[in-house]
Amino acid sequence: MFESAELGHKISKAVYTKELPVLREALLDTQLELIKAASFPVIILLGGVDGAGRGETVNLLNEWMDPRHIETHGMGDPTEEEQQRPEMWRFWQALPPKGKIGMFLGSWYTAPILDRVKGKIKSEAFDHSMENIARFEKMLTDEGALVLKFWMHLSKAKQEVRLKTLEKSTKTRWRVSSRDWAHFKLYDKFRKVSERAISQTSTAESPWIIVEGEDPHYRSLTVGKVILEALRKRIAENNVDAKHKTHVAPLLPAIDNLHILQRLNLNLKIEKKKYEALLEKYQGKLNLLMRHPQLKDVSVVIVFEGNDAAGKGGSIRRVTQALDARYYQVIPVASPTEEERAQPFLWRFWRRLPRRGRVTIFDRSWYGRVLVERVEGFCSSYDWMRAYGEINDFEEQLIDSNTILFKFWLSISNEEQLRRFEERQNTGFKRFKITDEDWRNRKKWSEYEQAVCDMVDRTSNTHAPWTLVEANDKYYARIKILKTLCERLEAQLGE
Amino acid sequence: MFESAELGHKISKAVYTKELPVLREALLDTQLELIKAASFPVIILLGGVDGAGRGETVNLLNEWMDPRHIETHGMGDPTEEEQQRPEMWRFWQALPPKGKIGMFLGSWYTAPILDRVKGKIKSEAFDHSMENIARFEKMLTDEGALVLKFWMHLSKAKQEVRLKTLEKSTKTRWRVSSRDWAHFKLYDKFRKVSERAISQTSTAESPWIIVEGEDPHYRSLTVGKVILEALRKRIAENNVDAKHKTHVAPLLPAIDNLHILQRLNLNLKIEKKKYEALLEKYQGKLNLLMRHPQLKDVSVVIVFEGNDAAGKGGSIRRVTQALDARYYQVIPVASPTEEERAQPFLWRFWRRLPRRGRVTIFDRSWYGRVLVERVEGFCSSYDWMRAYGEINDFEEQLIDSNTILFKFWLSISNEEQLRRFEERQNTGFKRFKITDEDWRNRKKWSEYEQAVCDMVDRTSNTHAPWTLVEANDKYYARIKILKTLCERLEAQLGE
Repeated sequence: MFESAELGHKISKAVYTKELPVLREALLDTQLELIKAASFPVIILLGGVDGAGRGETVNLLNEWMDPRHIETHGMGDPTEEEQQRPEMWRFWQALPPKGKIGMFLGSWYTAPILDRVKGKIKSEAFDHSMENIARFEKMLTDEGALVLKFWMHLSKAKQEVRLKTLEKSTKTRWRVSSRDWAHFKLYDKFRKVSERAISQTSTAESPWIIVEGEDPHYRSLTVGKVILEALRKRIAENNVDAKHKTHVAPLLPAIDNLHILQRLNLNLKIEKKKYEALLEKYQGKLNLLMRHPQLKDVSVVIVFEGNDAAGKGGSIRRVTQALDARYYQVIPVASPTEEERAQPFLWRFWRRLPRRGRVTIFDRSWYGRVLVERVEGFCSSYDWMRAYGEINDFEEQLIDSNTILFKFWLSISNEEQLRRFEERQNTGFKRFKITDEDWRNRKKWSEYEQAVCDMVDRTSNTHAPWTLVEANDKYYARIKILKTLCERLEAQLGE
Repeated sequence: MFESAELGHKISKAVYTKELPVLREALLDTQLELIKAASFPVIILLGGVDGAGRGETVNLLNEWMDPRHIETHGMGDPTEEEQQRPEMWRFWQALPPKGKIGMFLGSWYTAPILDRVKGKIKSEAFDHSMENIARFEKMLTDEGALVLKFWMHLSKAKQEVRLKTLEKSTKTRWRVSSRDWAHFKLYDKFRKVSERAISQTSTAESPWIIVEGEDPHYRSLTVGKVILEALRKRIAENNVDAKHKTHVAPLLPAIDNLHILQRLNLNLKIEKKKYEALLEKYQGKLNLLMRHPQLKDVSVVIVFEGNDAAGKGGSIRRVTQALDARYYQVIPVASPTEEERAQPFLWRFWRRLPRRGRVTIFDRSWYGRVLVERVEGFCSSYDWMRAYGEINDFEEQLIDSNTILFKFWLSISNEEQLRRFEERQNTGFKRFKITDEDWRNRKKWSEYEQAVCDMVDRTSNTHAPWTLVEANDKYYARIKILKTLCERLEAQLGE
C-alpha cells in the first residue's frame, strides 16, 4: 500500500523553481473558474503520518490560490458545543459550499484511527466506522462534491529522522511535541490501521492518494498537480451527470519519474551451478511443506503476473515440479470466453478457487482488469477504479476462508523484453510464443508501468502482499519465487 | 418498515383471472427480449417470513415464463464441497449469465439473519455482513445485473393463522415443519433483524420490495408486475451506461389500491369540551416531562410533515405552548436558500440540530427530498432513491447521540383539503395561507400519496417510527400528537 511512497521521491530545487510558477498560475486560473461556476464544492483531506508535511502543504496551497475561497479546518478535539451533537455535526458545519475549497487537516478519519491504534475500539467497530465514512463520502460525491484525499506518508526510519532534525534546531523544536513521539512509538500499529482505513475507503469516486512526505518539493508539486488535474477534469465535465464525475486517474502523476519498478535491481543474477543447487533445495523444501498435515485445511492460490516474456511459464513449471500432480491446477488466463463474458469479471476466477488442501496457480489473473483492460480501454475508468476495491474484497474473502495467497509480479527491463522478443521471433520453436499483440503492448510500456505501480499500491497489503520479482535473470527470478513460497508457507504453518 | 405489508392486501379471484393472462403474456414477451438481447442478467431474491409464499411465487414465475431460461436455487445449508471454499463461492457458482434469470429462495442474507436471530453473532458482526452484502450487490449492479429483492412479509398474527391452517389439512400438513414453529417463536427477533437487514441494504440500485404474503393473488400479481416493469425499463435503457440503470420506481405498484393512508380512520373526532380538558392535561404533562432532569442529557427533534392545510402550524403551537421558550426552536422549512443549495441536501438540517437539553421542531423537514422533490421532479430518481438510505443513516446518528426523534405525518382527506383551501380563499385573514402552489400540488394528490407510503415504508423503524395522525379533526390530531410525545418521552425517561 505504501510501496510507492517509500522510494525517496525528490525534486531538485532547480526543477521546483522552474515548475512552480507554471503550476501556481494554472492553479489560480482554475480556481477562478471554480469560483465563477460555483457548481461544485471541493473537499480536500490531508491525513497521514506526523511530520509528513500536512500543515506545510495546506499553507502552501493557501499561498498559491486565492485564500478567500479556501476554508481550512484544523479539527482538533471537539469543543463542548460540538460534543452536544452527533459526532459528524462539526464536519457538516465545516463543509465548503459550491465554488469553495474546504481543506481538512483533521477529519472524520482522525478519531477512529487513533482510537483503534490506542486499542480503545475493536477491529469490528473500526471497520464499522470506515463503512459509515464510505457511505458519508458516497453521499458527498453523489451530491456533486469533488473529494480529494491525500495521505502524506513517511517510512518509520524517515519519520524518526525528521522528528530528530526538527528537534535539533531551536527554530523548529517547538513543532515537535511529546505527543509526536508518543505517536511515533505506535508507528507500526498506526501503519497497519491506516492501511486498513485506506483500503476500506478507497473508492472509484474518492480514492486515497498516497504521497511520500519527505521531500517538500516533491510533495508540494504532487499535491498541487493532482488538485489541478482533478479540478480541470471536473470543470470540463460540468455538464455530465453526477455519477460520471472525475475519477482521479492516473492516480499519481509521474512528478519525478521515480517508481517502484525502477527501484528494482534487474541486474541481480544467480550463476547456473548455484541455481541448480538452490533449485533442488527449495523444490525439495516446497514439496515437504506442501505435504504438511496442516495444509489439508488450507487452500493455496498463487498469482503470476508480469511483463510479456518475463518468464511466467518457466517459473510456474519450476513450482509445479515440486508439487503432487493430484493436488494442483494451473489456470492459464486469456481473453474471457463467451460464457465468462456473460458474468461479472471476477466470476471466472471464483469458479476456479481450490478446495482445502489444493493449490491453484493462475497464469495471469483478475488483475487483468486493472492492467490490460485499463491500458487498452476495454473498460471505463469507473470500472477499473472500482476494481481495486472489488479485488481487495475478493482477496479478503479468500484469506478469511483459510487461503494462503501469493502474488508475483515478474519484472524485466524494456531492453531485455526486446531481446527476448527478437530471440523468439528468430527461433523457430519459440515463434508461437510471440504475437502482434505483444509488439503492440510493448509500445504502451510506460502506461503499463503506471498501471502496475497503481496496482501494487492499491492491492498490496499485509495479508495479501505483492512480491516484485527481478526477472531479467530467469534463474534469479525462479529462486526468489520458490524461496518466497517456502518462507511464507513456513511462517504460516508455524514451522 | 412493514407498514404497507400488514394492511390485508387482497385481489379478488375475478380480478386475478382477468389480469393474469395479460400479465403472463407480457412477462413471456419481455423475457424473450431479455433472452434475445442477452445483455444483462436478472437476479431475483425472495426472502421473508416462512409461510409468506416464497416457494409458491417461484413456482408460479417458472410457470409464467420460459423455465429453460430461469435457474432456481434453493440454497439450503452448504454442501461439503461448498464448505471448502469462501462462503460466497456457492452464490458465485449460481449467478445467472446475461439473458437468464436466477431466482434465489435462500440467499446471502439467510445465514447472517438466522445467525443473528439465534444470537450466534453480535450486532456488529451482523452489520458487517450487511455491509459486505451491500458491496457485493453494488458490484453486481455495477457489472450490469438487474437485482430485484422481494421480501415476502406476514404479520405475526397472520403467520400463526397460516401455519395452523396448513397443519389442519392432511394435504398440506407436510409443509409445516417443527423448524417453522421454532422460527415462529422467534418472530419478533426475526422481524427486528430483518428490519435492520432491509434498511442496511436497500440502495437506489437494488432496493428491497416488501410484499404482503397472505393473499396469493395479491402477492403473485405484485411480484409479477414489479418484475415486468423492471425488465421493461431495463431493456429500454439498454444503451444507457451501467450507472444509470433502472431504479425500481414507483417502488410498489398500486395493485389493489389499498395503502396505509387509506386505512386511517379520518372520522376520528374529539368534542371541543373534551378536547380542552385533554389539551390541558397533556400540555401539563409534557411540560413536566420536559423539565425532567434526565432530559438535560437528551436532545429532542420533532418532525412535522403532512398534506397542505393539514394543520401542522396549529399542532406545533399546541406543542410549543407546553415548552419553555428558552429551550426550543421551531424551524419552518421552505425552499432552500442560495447558501443551502450550495450544500448537500441534509446540510440545512444538520446545522439546526439542537444541543443537549433542547428541542427542535421542524415544520417540514429533510423528507422534502422524497416528497415534493420526488413528485415535482426537482431531483432524479437516483437522487431520491438514495435519499432513503441517507436519511436512515442521518437519523441513526441522531439516535446514537442521544436524540429522541418524533416524526408525525398529518393526514387529511382530499375533500377536507378542498374545504380548507376554499375556506382560506374566502377568509381575508387566512388568504395569505393559500397559494397557487397549493392548488398545483393538490392536482398530484395520488402521486403524493404514493410518495408518502414509500417514505413511511422505507424510513419507519423501531428507533425512529412514523406516527400517522388522523387530522380531519384538528382537535383529535393535536391530542394524538401531544399524547404520543408524552408517552414516548415517559417510556424513554423510564418514568
